[in-house]
Amino acid sequence: MSRLYFEDFHPGQVIELGTRTVTEAEILDFARQFDPQLFHVDRDAAAASHFGGIVASGWHTCSLLMRQIVDELLSRSVSHGSPGVDEIRWLKPVRPGDTLRMSMRVTEAIPSKSRPDRGVLKCEYQGVNQHGEAVVTMKTLGMFGRRPQ
Amino acid sequence: MSRLYFEDFHPGQVIELGTRTVTEAEILDFARQFDPQLFHVDRDAAAASHFGGIVASGWHTCSLLMRQIVDELLSRSVSHGSPGVDEIRWLKPVRPGDTLRMSMRVTEAIPSKSRPDRGVLKCEYQGVNQHGEAVVTMKTLGMFGRRPQ
Repeated sequence: MSRLYFEDFHPGQVIELGTRTVTEAEILDFARQFDPQLFHVDRDAAAASHFGGIVASGWHTCSLLMRQIVDELLSRSVSHGSPGVDEIRWLKPVRPGDTLRMSMRVTEAIPSKSRPDRGVLKCEYQGVNQHGEAVVTMKTLGMFGRRPQ
Repeated sequence: MSRLYFEDFHPGQVIELGTRTVTEAEILDFARQFDPQLFHVDRDAAAASHFGGIVASGWHTCSLLMRQIVDELLSRSVSHGSPGVDEIRWLKPVRPGDTLRMSMRVTEAIPSKSRPDRGVLKCEYQGVNQHGEAVVTMKTLGMFGRRPQ
């Protein structure tokens, strides 16, 4: 299988990253480990909260998005990792049974001056639920290898 | 137990969030679910990579930090959640057996104009490993309730 290099991306390019349905059991399991706020782990407390029911931890939502990024993009790219992420926004609650459609858009492609074998891609990611509502957005910096001459 | 309100925080305030040691089993379990890049899930591939061994997913590191934030801060505060996170930076790898000391610093405390019952705290969080190296930093917006008059 041919792999994707820095040269295979360009600003404006949109890449679909597939869909993922999240179950209540997954939401509870993640939150009990990492984010045990009541509206993530306690059905009764969640029902009484302004959320009106169990909602996923925002970190869980980001992790589900990351899985799609790995499966649909990084696993077939020459990726050198990421120094970080900017502007994560949790726009709507993610609830048990929701199906998120993930996608990315390349906003900038910058060849590295110090490392001629790689370049930086600035990308915007989003997850949209089955009602067409964006539930999460974020911006990343990713380092990708350049195609050997 | 008295709970913490918006009025209990002020710019410059530092709050310690305890320590957390992460095991290889935890790193592998998280990465297999959410971030199965080879340097997170495959010992041999990780050893041959520029990391030189298994390292934690950056999302796992953030989730471990979140757990400390919940246990040490949010569980005893009147918290109304967060619209998002900015400037996550993964500065150093997190490796099996590392112990991270987490802390937060309040940078701004802004009473809400539209909602007199709450205010926004801008905070910077960091995790420092047993060698004194910062491994992760991030900035958050958090909404906290104001103390009833």
